[in-house]
Formats: sequence, structure tokens, C-alpha cells
Amino acid sequence: MEEGLRERKKRETRQRIADTAMGLFMARGFDNVTVAEVARAADVSVNTVFNYFRTKEDLFADRQEFVETLPVEVLRAREPGESAVRAFRRDFLEAVETRGWRYGLQDGAVQFARMVDESPSLLARMREIHQRREDALARALADELGADADDLTPRLVAAQILTTTRLLSACAVRRAAAGEPWETIAPGLRSQAEAAFGLLESGIGDYCVRS
Amino acid sequence: MEEGLRERKKRETRQRIADTAMGLFMARGFDNVTVAEVARAADVSVNTVFNYFRTKEDLFADRQEFVETLPVEVLRAREPGESAVRAFRRDFLEAVETRGWRYGLQDGAVQFARMVDESPSLLARMREIHQRREDALARALADELGADADDLTPRLVAAQILTTTRLLSACAVRRAAAGEPWETIAPGLRSQAEAAFGLLESGIGDYCVRS
Repeated sequence: MEEGLRERKKRETRQRIADTAMGLFMARGFDNVTVAEVARAADVSVNTVFNYFRTKEDLFADRQEFVETLPVEVLRAREPGESAVRAFRRDFLEAVETRGWRYGLQDGAVQFARMVDESPSLLARMREIHQRREDALARALADELGADADDLTPRLVAAQILTTTRLLSACAVRRAAAGEPWETIAPGLRSQAEAAFGLLESGIGDYCVRS
Repeated sequence: MEEGLRERKKRETRQRIADTAMGLFMARGFDNVTVAEVARAADVSVNTVFNYFRTKEDLFADRQEFVETLPVEVLRAREPGESAVRAFRRDFLEAVETRGWRYGLQDGAVQFARMVDESPSLLARMREIHQRREDALARALADELGADADDLTPRLVAAQILTTTRLLSACAVRRAAAGEPWETIAPGLRSQAEAAFGLLESGIGDYCVRS
């Protein structure tokens, strides 16, 4: 079914409000921006904002929530002969080449991270999003393999993969926040990612053996 | 240096206050207990409570914070020829035999988990504790191996090990919360732990390969 004019207008208004809000949040910090200011900057009434978004946190989360489905898409798009971890390895390395926002490597990732860190309610929200993202990937893995409910493996695998990409991204953001340019961050991140995914693939059975 | 009478008294008072508080929190929920009630139940003044504990969250965290150092101890106590992951495997399986509180398998773990889940401030505190625990293990691994600051491996290994034990414990608590007796939880948990640590040791390179 094609999208009607009315639906398109609504979608565009919603998007404009969310984009405007994100710009203000990034510039001035989430806790320092009111919904009234968002409404004014987006040229709508406060009531209109609340028609689309129940809370100020929802204004922020709007663009984050579809991040939840990304790992499931990476899994589903894997190539013949490719394991789950290989698919994520390929996707992450591609994102390093293109500064993909899907792993938080885009320009502006530092400001985004700072905004989240400074607001307890955003931090809590991001943790929920991460949790739901991990749950979704675990369910997708379990479905593909027909794993039974007692099998913890899909959850463990989902957690290990997403913990790895999160630590890699956080390391890149930390370096960018310290003023390092992307040109020198990228090659280091590439080797770190290769080592990290290698670890996932082959395990840590030999790591830190007492002599 | 031996502990003087004064120091011992102080330590005992502190312990009594924390134990009393934990009993009340578990019975009635963290958010439903006031510091005044803790003071009354421990037979001290409110001021005395605040001399020992800055906030109500500190009263809770007192007993949790030393959980932070436990993984470092497991690592340091590993046997000759034993890898990091093997040491945790052994320690976790021992805890399954003894219902060790150090992985949250003790009697009362369900009430504890419920208390935390019901209080946003406790949830936030527990996440901080988990984060610091992971950081401490990562530092200990890096120290042992003389890893340089750019090497993400110690962090990745710490995160993978502690994510695994956390998911295993959470699964046991979930089953206990659903009314399953420990007698049937324990054998299942043992096989899940063996599978989970096997995954860590050998990697997930073959998991969910597209045919």
C-alpha cells in the first residue's frame, strides 16, 4: 500500500521534530533543553510534540530504537558459509572504512557519547536499548538454529558479539574525545577489530595461562 | 598491627548497621525503608548511620563492593598450567556445588534480585559495581601479561568471562524465581556452565554458519 499524503506529512513532521531535538540536545546537553524549546525550534506547538512523543526521553530514543534491529539484519544478511561472528566481523570492518554510524563511528559520535554520559536518564535508556538489542539478536540466533529454551548458547553468543563491538566502538570514541584524528584512529581500530573478532572465533582457551 | 578495641567496636557497629539494613531492604524493598527505620532496628541514632554511610545506597553497596575484587582473586589463584577462563570455570562449578553467594547462587538470591530490579537507584548502583569489577579484572589481566595500553584484549577477555558468569547466574535466578527447586536447577546449571565455558575456550567460529 502506498503512503498517503497525510501519512507522509505526519512522518515528515515527526522526523523534523526528532532531528531538531537531537540537534539541540547535542549542542546544549539533554538535561538543559526543554520540550518547549524543541517545539519552538521545530516550529510546532508543545502539544504537537507530545502527540508524537510521550516523553523527552522518547524524543531522544526515537532514532536509537531502530538500532535495536540492526544486529538481527547483520545476522540475516550473512553469506553462504559465513558464521554469525564472521558476518559481524565483515560488517564492523566495513563500518570502519565508511565511518558507519551503526557502530557509533560517525563524525559527532563524541558529542553523542558526551550527551548520554551527562544524563542519567539517557544512560538508563541506552542500557535498555542495548539490552533489547541483545535480546533480539539472541532470539534470532535461537530461531535460526531451532535451539530449545534451556539452551543458553544463543544468549551467550549474542552477548559476546555485541560486547565486542561495543568495546571496540567505545575505544574509538575515547581516542576521538582525546583529540586524535580519525585518520590515525581508523588503522588502529582495524587491527583491534581483527584481533577482537579473532579472539571470538578461536576462543580464549590459551589466554593468560599460569606458567 | 593488631586491631584495637575501638577499631573492633567501630567495625562491628558498621557491620551490624549494614546487616540490619540488608534484612529490612530484602523484606520490604529498598525504596520502602527509611534510614530512620534502619537506625531504629540497629539500635543506633540516625546520625550514627550517617557517620558510617553517606547515603542509603551506600548501606546497600557496602556488602556488594567487595564483590568487585572477587574476579581478581580468582585470576590470581589459578593453578599452574591453568588459563584465566579455566580458573573461572573451576570456580563457577565449585560455586554450583556449594551454592556460593559469590555468583549469586545462595538461598535468598531471588529476593536480592527482586529488590534490585524494583529500585532504579539500586539497579544503577549494581551496574556501576559490575563495571568496576570488569575494569579491575581487565587491569589485573593486563598487569600479568604486561599488555600495552592499546591492547584491547584484557578488556575483551574480562568482559567475556564476566558476561558468561552473569548470564549463567541470571538463568539460575530466573528458574528459582519461577519456583523451581535448587535440586533440579543445579544439574542444569552445571551442564550450561560447561557448555558456556567450552564456548569461551574454543570460540564461536563455527556458530550459526549459513548453509
